[in-house]
Amino acid sequence: MKRKIPYRTYLSEEQIPKYWYNLRADMKDKPEPLLNPANLRPVTKEELCPVFADELASQELDDTTRFIKIPEPVLELYKVYRPSPLIRAYNLEKHLGTPAKIYYKFEGNNTSGSHKLNSAIAQAYYAKEQGLDGLTTETGAGQWGTALSEACSYFGLPLTVYMVKVSYQQKPFRKSVMEVFGSDVIASPSNTTESGKKILEDDPECGGSLGCAISEAIEKAVTTPNTRYVLGSVLNQVLLHQSVIGLESKAALEIYGEYPDIIIGCAGGGSNLGGLIAPFMKDKLTGEANPRIIAVEPASCPSFTRGKYAYDFCDTGKITPLAKMYTLGSGFIPSANHAGGLRYHGMSPILSKLYHDGYMEAVSIEQSKVFGAAVLFSKIETILPAPESAHAISAAIDEANKCRETGEEKTILFGLTGTGYFDMTAYNDYMTGKMTDTIPTDEDLKKGFDSLPKVE
Amino acid sequence: MKRKIPYRTYLSEEQIPKYWYNLRADMKDKPEPLLNPANLRPVTKEELCPVFADELASQELDDTTRFIKIPEPVLELYKVYRPSPLIRAYNLEKHLGTPAKIYYKFEGNNTSGSHKLNSAIAQAYYAKEQGLDGLTTETGAGQWGTALSEACSYFGLPLTVYMVKVSYQQKPFRKSVMEVFGSDVIASPSNTTESGKKILEDDPECGGSLGCAISEAIEKAVTTPNTRYVLGSVLNQVLLHQSVIGLESKAALEIYGEYPDIIIGCAGGGSNLGGLIAPFMKDKLTGEANPRIIAVEPASCPSFTRGKYAYDFCDTGKITPLAKMYTLGSGFIPSANHAGGLRYHGMSPILSKLYHDGYMEAVSIEQSKVFGAAVLFSKIETILPAPESAHAISAAIDEANKCRETGEEKTILFGLTGTGYFDMTAYNDYMTGKMTDTIPTDEDLKKGFDSLPKVE
Repeated sequence: MKRKIPYRTYLSEEQIPKYWYNLRADMKDKPEPLLNPANLRPVTKEELCPVFADELASQELDDTTRFIKIPEPVLELYKVYRPSPLIRAYNLEKHLGTPAKIYYKFEGNNTSGSHKLNSAIAQAYYAKEQGLDGLTTETGAGQWGTALSEACSYFGLPLTVYMVKVSYQQKPFRKSVMEVFGSDVIASPSNTTESGKKILEDDPECGGSLGCAISEAIEKAVTTPNTRYVLGSVLNQVLLHQSVIGLESKAALEIYGEYPDIIIGCAGGGSNLGGLIAPFMKDKLTGEANPRIIAVEPASCPSFTRGKYAYDFCDTGKITPLAKMYTLGSGFIPSANHAGGLRYHGMSPILSKLYHDGYMEAVSIEQSKVFGAAVLFSKIETILPAPESAHAISAAIDEANKCRETGEEKTILFGLTGTGYFDMTAYNDYMTGKMTDTIPTDEDLKKGFDSLPKVE
Repeated sequence: MKRKIPYRTYLSEEQIPKYWYNLRADMKDKPEPLLNPANLRPVTKEELCPVFADELASQELDDTTRFIKIPEPVLELYKVYRPSPLIRAYNLEKHLGTPAKIYYKFEGNNTSGSHKLNSAIAQAYYAKEQGLDGLTTETGAGQWGTALSEACSYFGLPLTVYMVKVSYQQKPFRKSVMEVFGSDVIASPSNTTESGKKILEDDPECGGSLGCAISEAIEKAVTTPNTRYVLGSVLNQVLLHQSVIGLESKAALEIYGEYPDIIIGCAGGGSNLGGLIAPFMKDKLTGEANPRIIAVEPASCPSFTRGKYAYDFCDTGKITPLAKMYTLGSGFIPSANHAGGLRYHGMSPILSKLYHDGYMEAVSIEQSKVFGAAVLFSKIETILPAPESAHAISAAIDEANKCRETGEEKTILFGLTGTGYFDMTAYNDYMTGKMTDTIPTDEDLKKGFDSLPKVE
């Protein structure tokens, strides 16, 4: 009884995509443009260039070029840790007793521990090419900061990371990893920026948020000579770079004549989900196929499922352009007992548009259920997942269980974005019964919505 | 300019070895037998069976069967995370400016974070097959305990882990990972055993040692009904299981017509080194090839380079059989500032015999040099190594630098046993200049040697 499909499928080095796929090119209804908050006009490349490296500013605004060549030095570094494996979850299928075929694309087998490295390398490369002297960024759970530290170290670029203070305190080892790669890591809000000082004046005990760390990182970039800011999610350019995930997944599935009926990804800012679904969404937009696409978000930070589709600032300090997206308001901060990442108030404008137009579904899950799925998955599939990734696992289990009820042999693909080795405090809370779930009340949400800017 | 050899080579699932290779079968001069300390006669299978699962007791004593079939359920679980990649260190070669070709076999891409899982799965499987009700073991840095927890969880076997107290305190997250897999983790020395109590009476502040944790785990196993003890290194059976590392490495190198001139592995108890070199040592024993083989150990625990080749107990409590090995004496405890693993007082009897007979070399390295190599490797090869593994990296760099001096294009293979995500306290000490080196004085060593039993 020879098994045709192995547990792990690795494409060859030559099969790593040579081009990123720009999903916007195939969207007839494009995402709404970024607006300059001063005049509510679409931002221009000239306006973006003081913040982003020039090439990245171009990519941010380019909604027509379908394929963008991956620069050779980026591809070389991709080869050091890619292709990532596409894994058939035979053990999970057996445990659930489901006729569904479950696949997952595992992006955690690199030191940054997540998919974030795919965009970090691209962004560090373009910055280096432009001759910049340094970069700034923010990080929440620490995956993006670690990935960018790794990429900047490789290309020899100094990096300052503003790390959300609660994560900085909960995950000192993440900070140490970034320091191994030579980065300067600062707990946010901090006294190193005007926006940080202002937040600390209002609330000296503030544990920070991604939106707040973004404000500080941008301010630091624009006030430091020859320095730019980079962001690990949300932006169009990031989804572009992350398309390697989906392109590799599709190529690996094609080897076995497989095509997913359901594609599931966790969604914080949307970088993994946007990358994973890119080539499949293309099929959907062009009518070639019609897979279900499901975004999974924490019940404690439910941008898609309870947010508004509105223009909002990308940061708390209200210094970024305005993006039309599903948002809880830049003033929204998840409950302090929220353990994982996915804590961003907004969502990728591309994914927001697709969700608004009915191309995607979204579900939200409480964290105790998410950690239950994570522990089960650890035992059965032998990978200890990041809490972020476990959102997708939980939803995939739900769909596989539905297949058990109906007898349908659906093919499910989900994104396993990373590993949870730096999340053991949260795992420990779950194991010892200390983890609680907090779902924001309508009143909580209203406070966030009150922070939305008046546009139109 | 097409590069023929990729960064990462993965064998296919079908190419995972179906048989373990038993190096002893090809040794004309066999390792000395284990002795029963009561009568100084070679131990029999009957004497081992109260401690080890029956099949493992057989494997421990079998020095004639050349290939032993890997049971199907073990092979199935191997497929979930194997084959592991053979990586060409192009970036490291370039950084060093060496004509040497550097390859490393990376065993860290699984949740246990190291090669230890290869033997853990085998040992848990045989225990389950025999119908045992539970297992006990010890762990130092935590890699073995994590690996066995993962394997026991998979096969549904309860596990008690005695964790060396200093590691238990320095690495609480390792403990949490083991608990995710359902294990009971106890800091050793503890009050749960007579041997632990005795050690605590002599020294209530004792930080523990592997030898001491072994005593407790064995005592717990033999005093608990239908329970056995398992060990993650040193034993012949463990080297047998770890031969998959070397077999895969050799098969992957053969694809490119490569054969290593130098093979380097870190050595604590010898499980990784013994597994990595197995098929190459075969060539050496049979005269087919003559690679240099180098064991690398910490200067603070120098069993090969400063130990005695003598019969010694495998544990501190002196309840195990006696093994002829390079040893610092079971009473030797590495200096408290020693950060990594590789802290065992003895060494695999197989490797000890080969070293004694001139088939291997050994070097010892101070930990600050080891961490320097680890940080460099993180930045250049993008994998943050375990301190254990970094010993091999450091020695490989030394050899590659010699090639730069001589212009020799040697092929170097080293074992990258695992990742260092749970060793960030030590990395942080190194980064902040707090790490110190302590080399045992002759007086320190004499104390250990004084604990050697009188045999012959």
